[in-house]
Amino acid sequence: MRAIILSIGDELILGQVTDTNAGWLSARLVEHGIVPEYHETVADDLNAIVASVRRAASGAGLVLITGGLGPTRDDLTREALAHVLKVPLVLHKPSLGTLREFFKKRGRVMSESNTVQAMFPRGARVLDNPVGTAPGFSARIGRAAIAVMPGVPREMRFMFARHVVPLLGKRRAGAVLTARINVFGMGESVVGERLGELMRRDRNPLVGTTASDAVISVRIRGEFASNLSGKLAMRRTVAEVKRRLGDCIFSEGDVTLAAAVGKLLAVRRKTLATAESCTAGLLGAMITETPGSSRYYAGGWVVYSNKMKSACLGVPADLVRRHGAVSEAVARRMAEGALKMARSDYALAITGIAGPGGGAPGKEVGMVWIALAVKSGGRVAVSAEKFLFPGERALVRDRSAKAALDMLRLAMVRA
Amino acid sequence: MRAIILSIGDELILGQVTDTNAGWLSARLVEHGIVPEYHETVADDLNAIVASVRRAASGAGLVLITGGLGPTRDDLTREALAHVLKVPLVLHKPSLGTLREFFKKRGRVMSESNTVQAMFPRGARVLDNPVGTAPGFSARIGRAAIAVMPGVPREMRFMFARHVVPLLGKRRAGAVLTARINVFGMGESVVGERLGELMRRDRNPLVGTTASDAVISVRIRGEFASNLSGKLAMRRTVAEVKRRLGDCIFSEGDVTLAAAVGKLLAVRRKTLATAESCTAGLLGAMITETPGSSRYYAGGWVVYSNKMKSACLGVPADLVRRHGAVSEAVARRMAEGALKMARSDYALAITGIAGPGGGAPGKEVGMVWIALAVKSGGRVAVSAEKFLFPGERALVRDRSAKAALDMLRLAMVRA
Repeated sequence: MRAIILSIGDELILGQVTDTNAGWLSARLVEHGIVPEYHETVADDLNAIVASVRRAASGAGLVLITGGLGPTRDDLTREALAHVLKVPLVLHKPSLGTLREFFKKRGRVMSESNTVQAMFPRGARVLDNPVGTAPGFSARIGRAAIAVMPGVPREMRFMFARHVVPLLGKRRAGAVLTARINVFGMGESVVGERLGELMRRDRNPLVGTTASDAVISVRIRGEFASNLSGKLAMRRTVAEVKRRLGDCIFSEGDVTLAAAVGKLLAVRRKTLATAESCTAGLLGAMITETPGSSRYYAGGWVVYSNKMKSACLGVPADLVRRHGAVSEAVARRMAEGALKMARSDYALAITGIAGPGGGAPGKEVGMVWIALAVKSGGRVAVSAEKFLFPGERALVRDRSAKAALDMLRLAMVRA
Repeated sequence: MRAIILSIGDELILGQVTDTNAGWLSARLVEHGIVPEYHETVADDLNAIVASVRRAASGAGLVLITGGLGPTRDDLTREALAHVLKVPLVLHKPSLGTLREFFKKRGRVMSESNTVQAMFPRGARVLDNPVGTAPGFSARIGRAAIAVMPGVPREMRFMFARHVVPLLGKRRAGAVLTARINVFGMGESVVGERLGELMRRDRNPLVGTTASDAVISVRIRGEFASNLSGKLAMRRTVAEVKRRLGDCIFSEGDVTLAAAVGKLLAVRRKTLATAESCTAGLLGAMITETPGSSRYYAGGWVVYSNKMKSACLGVPADLVRRHGAVSEAVARRMAEGALKMARSDYALAITGIAGPGGGAPGKEVGMVWIALAVKSGGRVAVSAEKFLFPGERALVRDRSAKAALDMLRLAMVRA
C-alpha cells in the first residue's frame, strides 16, 4: 500500500520547531510492513494544505496528517479537509463535553477558543484524545484513508496507537522485515567497506548505513513473499553484519548506547558513579533515560568549577594548578574520587574543553580526557584516554558522554 | 522567491533518524526573507529522487537538497541530479586530492569507496567541505538554482554558510521580518486567548503560537514594502504581545530558558548549584549548554540513590525514611545542602518520580518536588513547590528541569 505522511505548521516551515512526527510515524508504518513514499511539510495556509492533501490522496491508500488542530486561528487543518471533502465543519457535541471535562479535571476553565476543537468535517469519524484537547478525525478521499492527528507528539502517538494501528493490521500484505545494528567507535566509510558487497542495491534484504551523532546504524530491510523465508534471510544477513563489525556493535534495534551499558551493568550486578566537568550532567542524564537505571546508577558529581573538583572529589588543588583541569592526572583523580565516595564498582570521569572559548595551545577546544576507575577485589584500577572531538560545543559534549559510556562498555565486554 | 527544501535518505523515510536539516535550512532562509514553500523527504531511490527534484525545480527559484552524498552504495543523490541534468558524473581531481588529504591529516587511510565522493554531474560547481568528506555541488535546472549538500548536519550547516548564503544575499527582495517571544508556565490556549485579535489571519504582521516541550513561542512574521515601516509595525506588535503575557515571557528569539536564567545570574553576579535526583544531571546539562556558564554555575550533585542524598548533601536518612525520597522535606534539605556545600548564592533541588515505574498511592508518577535555596545576607531562605507532570519519563524529566529553572528565574525577576 502506498502511504504518505503530511506535517502541517508554520513553525515547521519557518524552522522554529523540528518535526519529529513524520519520522516517528514512518517507523511505525515500517513496523507494519508499509514503507512511506514521501513526507511533505506545508505551512498553516489553507491553499497549501488543500493542495498537499489532494496530491497525497490522489495516489495513496493511506495519508497520515499531523498538526493544525490547535485552538488558535492559525490552526486550519480542519477547514482544509472540509474544503477537500466539500462538506461543512459541524460541531460534535460529545467532543465538546469531553473537552469541558478535560479542563474541569485539571481545575481550569475551558477557554471559548477551544470550542473549535470539537468541530469536524461532516461525515468524518472523530478520534478521541484522552491526553490532550485536540481530537483527531478520519475520513475517505477517493480510495485513500485519511487520518488527521494533533501535532503535539505525545497526543499524536497516543491517537495513532489507539485509532490508526487497528486500520493497518487489516491492510498488512506480504512481509517487510527490518533490523538495525548499532555501532560506536567506527567511521561510516569503514563500516561501509567492511560490509562491502552486503550493501549492493540489488540485494534482498537491502543493507544501508546511517550516521547519527557518532552512532553508525546498519539498517537491514527486506521484502519477502513469506514471513518464514524472510526471517531466515534476515537472520543470515544480521549474522554476517555482526561477524564483520565485531565488538564495535553495542546494540540492535533502538537500544541506545546508555541502555546497552546499563544492561551490561545490571546483568553483572555492578554499580556506576560519574564525575563530570565539561558534560556537566549530560552523562548522568543519558544513563538515567533508561527506566530502572537506579539499579546500577548510584549518582554523580557535576564538578564544573575547580573548587568543586577539590571539595567534592578530593582532587588536590595543587594537581589542578600543575596539570590544568583538563589533564590525565585530574581525570584519573576525579574517577578515583567518585568511585570511593559513591562506593560503586565503576566510575567514569570526564574533563574537557567543550568550547567555543577556553582553548589554549596544547589544550585546544574539543580536547577531552576520560577516565574509568574499576574496583576489583580490594584494589582500584584506573585507565584514561585522551580524545580530540572536532565540532561545536554540543557535539563535543555529546561525543564525550558517549565515548565514556563506550569505554565502560568495552571494559565489561572484553573483561 | 519560491524556495523548496528536499531531504533524501532511507533513514528518514524509515523513521530511523529525525530530519533536523529541513527545519534548520528553513530558519536560515526565513532570516533572509525567504519563506520556503514546502519540505519534502524521499528515500535513497533513484526514481523517487529524480521525480522529487523535477517537481521542485519546475516551480521554484531555489531548491536546497541534503543527503545522499555519502561514500556507500545507497547514496544516490549525485546520480539522480546527473540524470535530471542529462549529463554524466565526472571525477573532480582537486576534490579527490582534498579527500585524500582529509584522511591523511587524521592519520587514517582513505577507503577506495570514498572516491565516489569526488564525482559530480558534469558542469556542476563543486562546493568544498573542509569539515567532512562529502563535497556538495550547485547547478541550474531551468530557472531554479539547485544546491546539493551533505546530510550530516554539521557539514551541511558549514557548507550552507560558506556557499549558499552568498547566493541568497543577492536575491533578497522586500522585507520579511520575524520575531519570537518565548513563554513558560502558561498553556497555549491561554496564551492564544490573551493575544486575542492579535492572532487574526488577515493581520500584518501575523501572530501565531507554537508549543514545544512546554515552551510556548509566539511567532510574529510580517511582509513589508520597506524595512523601516516593517520595523515600526513589528515593534508595536512585539510591545503589545509583551504587555499581554507579562513575566511569563522569559526570552526573545532563540534564547533558551536556561540561557535566560544564566543571563540573569551573570548580570547579578550570582552563582548557582544543583542537586538532582530524578533528572540526574539534565538540569546541569541544560544550564551548561550555554557557553560561559562557568561564570555562574558552580556544579552539582546527582543524588540518584538515597545513600548519595545522605552522604553528599547531608539529607538525614531518617528524613528520607519518614517522608520518602520524593517529599517537600527532602527537596528542601537537598537544596540547602547543595547551597552550603557549593557556597553558592542559589541552589535548585529536584526530586520526583519520572516513571514509568516507582509510583505509589499519593506519590503518583509525574509527582515532582522542586526546592530553591537562596542565600541572602547570612541567612538561607528555602521555598518548595510540588508539581504533577503528565506524560512519559522523558517529558517528566524535561518539565522538571525547566520548572526548576523557571522557579529561579521568577525569584530573580520578582525580587
